Amino acid sequence: MAFNGADALTRVLIDNGIDTCFSNPGTTEMHLVAALTRDAGIANHLCLFEGVATGAADGYARMTGRPAATLLHLGPGLANGLANLHNARKAATPVLNIVGEHAQAHIAHDAPLTADIEGLARPVSKAVATLRMTGEIAQATRSMLSEIQSGEKGVGTLIVPNDVAWADAVPGNLPPVEPPQPAAPDPVAIDAAAEALKAPGALLILGSPHITRRMQELVFAIATATGARLMGEAATARLSRGGGLPLLPRIPFQIDMALDALKDTSTAVLAGARAPVAFFAYPERPSELLPTDCRRVTLCPPQGAVEAALEALADRLGVSLGPLEAPELPALPEGTITPEALGAAVANALPEGAIVADESVTNGAALQPACAAAPAHDWINNRGGSIGYSLPLALGCAAACPDRPVFAIVGDGSASYTLQALWTMARAGMNVTVIVLSNRRYRILTNEMSKIGAGTPDENSDPLMSLDNPPIDWTDLARGFGVPGERAETAEALHTAILAALAAPGPHLIEAIM
Amino acid sequence: MAFNGADALTRVLIDNGIDTCFSNPGTTEMHLVAALTRDAGIANHLCLFEGVATGAADGYARMTGRPAATLLHLGPGLANGLANLHNARKAATPVLNIVGEHAQAHIAHDAPLTADIEGLARPVSKAVATLRMTGEIAQATRSMLSEIQSGEKGVGTLIVPNDVAWADAVPGNLPPVEPPQPAAPDPVAIDAAAEALKAPGALLILGSPHITRRMQELVFAIATATGARLMGEAATARLSRGGGLPLLPRIPFQIDMALDALKDTSTAVLAGARAPVAFFAYPERPSELLPTDCRRVTLCPPQGAVEAALEALADRLGVSLGPLEAPELPALPEGTITPEALGAAVANALPEGAIVADESVTNGAALQPACAAAPAHDWINNRGGSIGYSLPLALGCAAACPDRPVFAIVGDGSASYTLQALWTMARAGMNVTVIVLSNRRYRILTNEMSKIGAGTPDENSDPLMSLDNPPIDWTDLARGFGVPGERAETAEALHTAILAALAAPGPHLIEAIM
Repeated sequence: MAFNGADALTRVLIDNGIDTCFSNPGTTEMHLVAALTRDAGIANHLCLFEGVATGAADGYARMTGRPAATLLHLGPGLANGLANLHNARKAATPVLNIVGEHAQAHIAHDAPLTADIEGLARPVSKAVATLRMTGEIAQATRSMLSEIQSGEKGVGTLIVPNDVAWADAVPGNLPPVEPPQPAAPDPVAIDAAAEALKAPGALLILGSPHITRRMQELVFAIATATGARLMGEAATARLSRGGGLPLLPRIPFQIDMALDALKDTSTAVLAGARAPVAFFAYPERPSELLPTDCRRVTLCPPQGAVEAALEALADRLGVSLGPLEAPELPALPEGTITPEALGAAVANALPEGAIVADESVTNGAALQPACAAAPAHDWINNRGGSIGYSLPLALGCAAACPDRPVFAIVGDGSASYTLQALWTMARAGMNVTVIVLSNRRYRILTNEMSKIGAGTPDENSDPLMSLDNPPIDWTDLARGFGVPGERAETAEALHTAILAALAAPGPHLIEAIM
Repeated sequence: MAFNGADALTRVLIDNGIDTCFSNPGTTEMHLVAALTRDAGIANHLCLFEGVATGAADGYARMTGRPAATLLHLGPGLANGLANLHNARKAATPVLNIVGEHAQAHIAHDAPLTADIEGLARPVSKAVATLRMTGEIAQATRSMLSEIQSGEKGVGTLIVPNDVAWADAVPGNLPPVEPPQPAAPDPVAIDAAAEALKAPGALLILGSPHITRRMQELVFAIATATGARLMGEAATARLSRGGGLPLLPRIPFQIDMALDALKDTSTAVLAGARAPVAFFAYPERPSELLPTDCRRVTLCPPQGAVEAALEALADRLGVSLGPLEAPELPALPEGTITPEALGAAVANALPEGAIVADESVTNGAALQPACAAAPAHDWINNRGGSIGYSLPLALGCAAACPDRPVFAIVGDGSASYTLQALWTMARAGMNVTVIVLSNRRYRILTNEMSKIGAGTPDENSDPLMSLDNPPIDWTDLARGFGVPGERAETAEALHTAILAALAAPGPHLIEAIM
């Protein structure tokens, strides 16, 4: 077959190191399917729902630093992927969506699947482009790859009309994109931060799309040297931790706990972090969590060279990195699976190199703290708040890091959104351990209802927050998608089940009855 | 608690006969949950995924003619519901989305869940509005209810900031909406249609959001009297049929079959139908399915008074309605579940008053024709082409018509999109029989790839169309969501399983191995 537009697009992807595509194609993407699968250089993962594909692309890029592609079918296919693209956008993850469109002459006829694809893409995308002719494929794709990997990274949506995909084309042969490096640290900002951290009531807030171990070694030393307090943002796209690093405390999700934790802050130094804001607005509570008279000093913006800025700050302060006090593993838990027991069971089983996609919601309070004592691992948080992210994210992390054990720890409400991810994990034999926290309730709503001043759940409203009628059987759901499932009713059983899952290849699901 | 904005909105819904809400709420919707559940006049159905809620609202309105509400959580919640709202839009179904938004002062702080909700809503909505103060709730909601039920009906998205929901309010006390009746038939159009139908090669194409039995009695008589051919649109939002009515032939989905079926048409008379267009564009094939020199005569637009126009046309032609020849039931099928056997098994089991949400895709060729011989029933087609519609639609139909048996007949690829609908069916004990057509393949892509000129599936591309590794076990998935499941490997077993499902209350799932 002649070299066509789909081939030309694929060539640009390969030239730019895009080696993975998460797909749910349709008729309008068949030329793209042919081109993307013809070359052995691209791994193609079929997903049964588009929200799985977009979340997986997010996870892939969080672990590799490079975008993966998604292949989506027209406007409705993109629409199904939007919620996890929202999460990717808020995490500043680069993702390249390739969305098929009807042949251009067909669009005006308003066929059943015709939709405003650009309009659907815009709210979640940093860049949106519709290809009009094969001659612009190379430049347009390259520009988009550049844009989504520059400054604050983001989502790019490339819309490919079918006639552009099927028309004869010639290869573009442009050089690969070289995303610009973040600007060098600003000496004025370094000086200001160094000064600010010495003030009584100073707080250093660390954030970044990827908080590295080195960043933490630096901030722990800086905090010790200056006497400043230290906190991480409420959610981090990727946090490398464990293996002897102390726990990086987080700004709490819960509004009153967050206000209390920050109330004595006179000066906040922002290292790759934004000034913290409330997750939701509550009556009689502020949106900004720092006190109104708190001074804000930006060491480095989120898209800056955070690690280099911290190196310069440590240097400026004459800080030397000393030994750090490693946290202690909690004892092996027994009995009921409380949030504390969950944390202890996971922390005692987490192996070196693990990746944890954390969507533990109301049962997660003790999870991240307990796991600080585990061997070195990566922790993934949701920065966009749209639930149903962790199963797809875990899939993408496993595709990115096939030799590392991956965990998704997820509330039962959240897991119900994108459970189709289990099938793709099973298909590829990915080493993912899914722990579903089964409390048979949207517990967060029960907690939030009174906080937001809407009364307390009663016999009328409770049915919109409870998941116990009928109870969802997660072992059945897992088996349906080809994943072995087990139920754990005690903390001992949970710990044992995690070890068993790690010992056997392929994905496993554990339903932890909370 | 004081009467607040959420109460004021709920009052408008009740005053306008909105009695059903399909919900997946979050923190920003808690005041709406309290208000919507406080009054016993609104049935609230919790859905585990927003695409279930929006598809259910579509199904509800197709059967009742009245909109249901959805309650969705912020931009990402709406995003998850967009694909089925696309289908509702294409079916001209009135749906009212109520979407929570952050308190207005909070939006500028760009919290995790902040998103461009209006931007997300616009591509699928006929009307979008964001409430700014409690004083405008009654008028804005009433206007939206009017707009989505006037002319070509559609989707309305009402965005409710949390501070508008929680602020003190007074009831609006506006009179209920009275949607305008469609314009009376146009005598000039009646005359033109009557004349056109007498031409050799004339074709009457029938369409409407609801093709009633009366419309079919009229068009069969008109076709007989004039000698014109008769076809229905490729997909109908709701078609009342069976019980002695002859089969209304449909314009085929498959491009070459459609072109062949229409090639001798000299004059097309459009009764509530649009001039047919190809589902997709194909190389060397036209987008418009009627011959270029075919004359198009509009008897009545889709949003018009189709039945009245047909009455007037029959009158103008002096047609009298005679007895119609009832189709014959196919014999009870045996052996392998072929598409023909599927049709025969369902047709022989379909009870009086059944509602069938048809998403049978490539296995459905014989299904609708065979069921023409069944007792009177309603048939639901997808007019938007976004798959994952039939399980939510069936849920909505069951909520609308609790005393009627509802079927969802759905390919395994399509069923994987919104399988969470099973849980809500189980919770409410709805009488839905789900038949999953398990061919373990996106068969339509295998068929379409060569038609669209992208080659044939080979060892590289086939993994993006095949669902056999691992095989999905639909009985496990059903059980996981609390629905009894059974596998049928022969046509006899399928027929028996359908009868058993109908004999027992509550939902059932049958996995038909094709």
